[in-house]
Amino acid sequence: MGITDPTRPGGRPNPLAKLEVERTPWLQQAEASDVVVSSRVRLARNLAGFRFVNRAEHDDRTAVLELLRDRLDRAELTPGVPAQWLDIHTLDRLDRDLLVERHLISPQHARGMNSGSARTDPRAVVVSLPDEGVSVMVNEEDHLRLQSLRPGLALERALTDVDSVDDGIEQSVDYAYSARFGYLTACPTNVGTGIRFSVMLHLPALRMLGEVEKVKRAAGDMSLAVRGFWGEGSEAEGDFYQLSNQTTLGRTERVMLDGLQRTIVPRVIDFERRARERLLSQRRLLLEDTVYRSLGILQQARRMTTGEAMQRLSELRLGGTLGLIRTPLLETVSQLLMLIHPAHLQRVTGRSLAQDERRAERASILRARLADVSVAP
Amino acid sequence: MGITDPTRPGGRPNPLAKLEVERTPWLQQAEASDVVVSSRVRLARNLAGFRFVNRAEHDDRTAVLELLRDRLDRAELTPGVPAQWLDIHTLDRLDRDLLVERHLISPQHARGMNSGSARTDPRAVVVSLPDEGVSVMVNEEDHLRLQSLRPGLALERALTDVDSVDDGIEQSVDYAYSARFGYLTACPTNVGTGIRFSVMLHLPALRMLGEVEKVKRAAGDMSLAVRGFWGEGSEAEGDFYQLSNQTTLGRTERVMLDGLQRTIVPRVIDFERRARERLLSQRRLLLEDTVYRSLGILQQARRMTTGEAMQRLSELRLGGTLGLIRTPLLETVSQLLMLIHPAHLQRVTGRSLAQDERRAERASILRARLADVSVAP
Repeated sequence: MGITDPTRPGGRPNPLAKLEVERTPWLQQAEASDVVVSSRVRLARNLAGFRFVNRAEHDDRTAVLELLRDRLDRAELTPGVPAQWLDIHTLDRLDRDLLVERHLISPQHARGMNSGSARTDPRAVVVSLPDEGVSVMVNEEDHLRLQSLRPGLALERALTDVDSVDDGIEQSVDYAYSARFGYLTACPTNVGTGIRFSVMLHLPALRMLGEVEKVKRAAGDMSLAVRGFWGEGSEAEGDFYQLSNQTTLGRTERVMLDGLQRTIVPRVIDFERRARERLLSQRRLLLEDTVYRSLGILQQARRMTTGEAMQRLSELRLGGTLGLIRTPLLETVSQLLMLIHPAHLQRVTGRSLAQDERRAERASILRARLADVSVAP
Repeated sequence: MGITDPTRPGGRPNPLAKLEVERTPWLQQAEASDVVVSSRVRLARNLAGFRFVNRAEHDDRTAVLELLRDRLDRAELTPGVPAQWLDIHTLDRLDRDLLVERHLISPQHARGMNSGSARTDPRAVVVSLPDEGVSVMVNEEDHLRLQSLRPGLALERALTDVDSVDDGIEQSVDYAYSARFGYLTACPTNVGTGIRFSVMLHLPALRMLGEVEKVKRAAGDMSLAVRGFWGEGSEAEGDFYQLSNQTTLGRTERVMLDGLQRTIVPRVIDFERRARERLLSQRRLLLEDTVYRSLGILQQARRMTTGEAMQRLSELRLGGTLGLIRTPLLETVSQLLMLIHPAHLQRVTGRSLAQDERRAERASILRARLADVSVAP
């Protein structure tokens, strides 16, 4: 089917040829990555003199797209690496899904938020490949959505990176800005700094002990949102939760960053780690049963849904961090957390797969890559 | 705790010392045992001149018990093997449960059907150990319940065995018999020959394909009952179903036996075997996924309920009969189907176990005994 080919049928180049599906930079091991999978900073920006995307006609959106294409094509989002401009409306469904699975674009951006047609709504993403550290969505909810995504607890680093790209862009375009309110955005919750910090947390022990609700309530009390693996509107999958600030107006980036990076996230990390300790010391049989059953199933199942695979890998990841599984394991599990998703599966196998085939292929990849994993002595 | 000791605390001998829990004669491989686990023939008999058990006072039941003790103690239920007389009301709870698990007595007989007290209701079982082929319950629903239990499809053999014991007993006691009705029994459904034939069927493929209800309906149309692993009032566990005749009056033993052994049971066997063929040819992925998941879980779980263990072993047994699992497996699985039950677990481990401990011990025994089992090449 040519999914992995450098060229597509008709001689068109494969726009995602440089994407390294076998390695996901933001899923590597890093600081506190036993609990914090990744850190993300996102900035919402709009161009002065153009309507917001949700109020714009098709022609307006095309004008924004072309202006930004002119300024951002081959921008160095990662120093020294010219970025690639990808017109989302010209991509195949599978390529769009692949970008969603890698968290490079939102599910809304893949679908097309405005005209209702994925193939006509003029929109893009700019990304440095294979680095993927910083990316810019064009004509999503705002004209520009800048994102930096880093492994582990690294909000400072992510902020530095995205700020630097933001400064670069601001030299070539005129942002919609109010001296009173700050950056103007399509949704009022983003007005001000236009910033959103978020961390992807892995909380299997708290879930097993029924204490995730406590985290959610505490987060709510601090105006933080807890979302699922795919962000806004998604359910938690495999015990992965996104924690992020809800509002931006009237608070400086620095205050928000400090609150999250130095106080709130470390508190959640501590809470989860204590839960893991409690499982080890007081509920060891429950813990081992959960982890080793997942191992047995991952090594033997012949078909598996994405949701089940996420849950089994989550439990295996927990076992890995607690020494119940012979290492090295975490890199493999991290990579599998990406590969089990439909577009990745099809890219890796190099062919288009129906749902039943995907379930069989998913189980097959899991068996092959986890065949050597064994119970810790 | 002395469960396995030849003597109990206080120097009492262990009444079940001769019971071989590691080997269950009626679970061995035999004819058609891919589908028919075992065959059972049961005769209901009562003594002339004594009230039926459900109408009898305690003293009446004691009188029956003592009369039969005199006649049956050391009777050769298996030629050449003197039987053992076991007073159920003097046994420990665990010993009673062990006899139930081996299908040597009914759950009702273990509890005591009449006086409401397991420790006072005068009743017994007579059994040749370690053979276990024929056993006689005394003061269950009838004064005598003779049972022959054989592996595989062997109703003829079971009938021959139980008839021979019946003839032997009839030489020393006077059965309640009416020239018009035949043998008289406490429940009208048993009047006549007093016979019940039953086969324990393993129907995992029909269950996976949702066709067990068809078997139940067809059985109902032929006045046959479909019950669970533990007989009357029990649910199917691990896809094991007991098929038996419901009434006895007005039909000869031979007609009933021929109907079951030559027509009905072979038809169910064929139905299940065709379902297995269909799984192999049309639903192979479902089949392999089910069988191998069960293998993975049995080899890795750290705690397991009896119900889950029955289900997993059932699926592994199916895989074994279809060549999906490297043989030899069926003997091991058959034995485990017995060992996973609470009283057996406690007898094998030699100590009294609370529910949580049993679940851990069950998983541990399953892991140990199935460690070498692997997917067929």
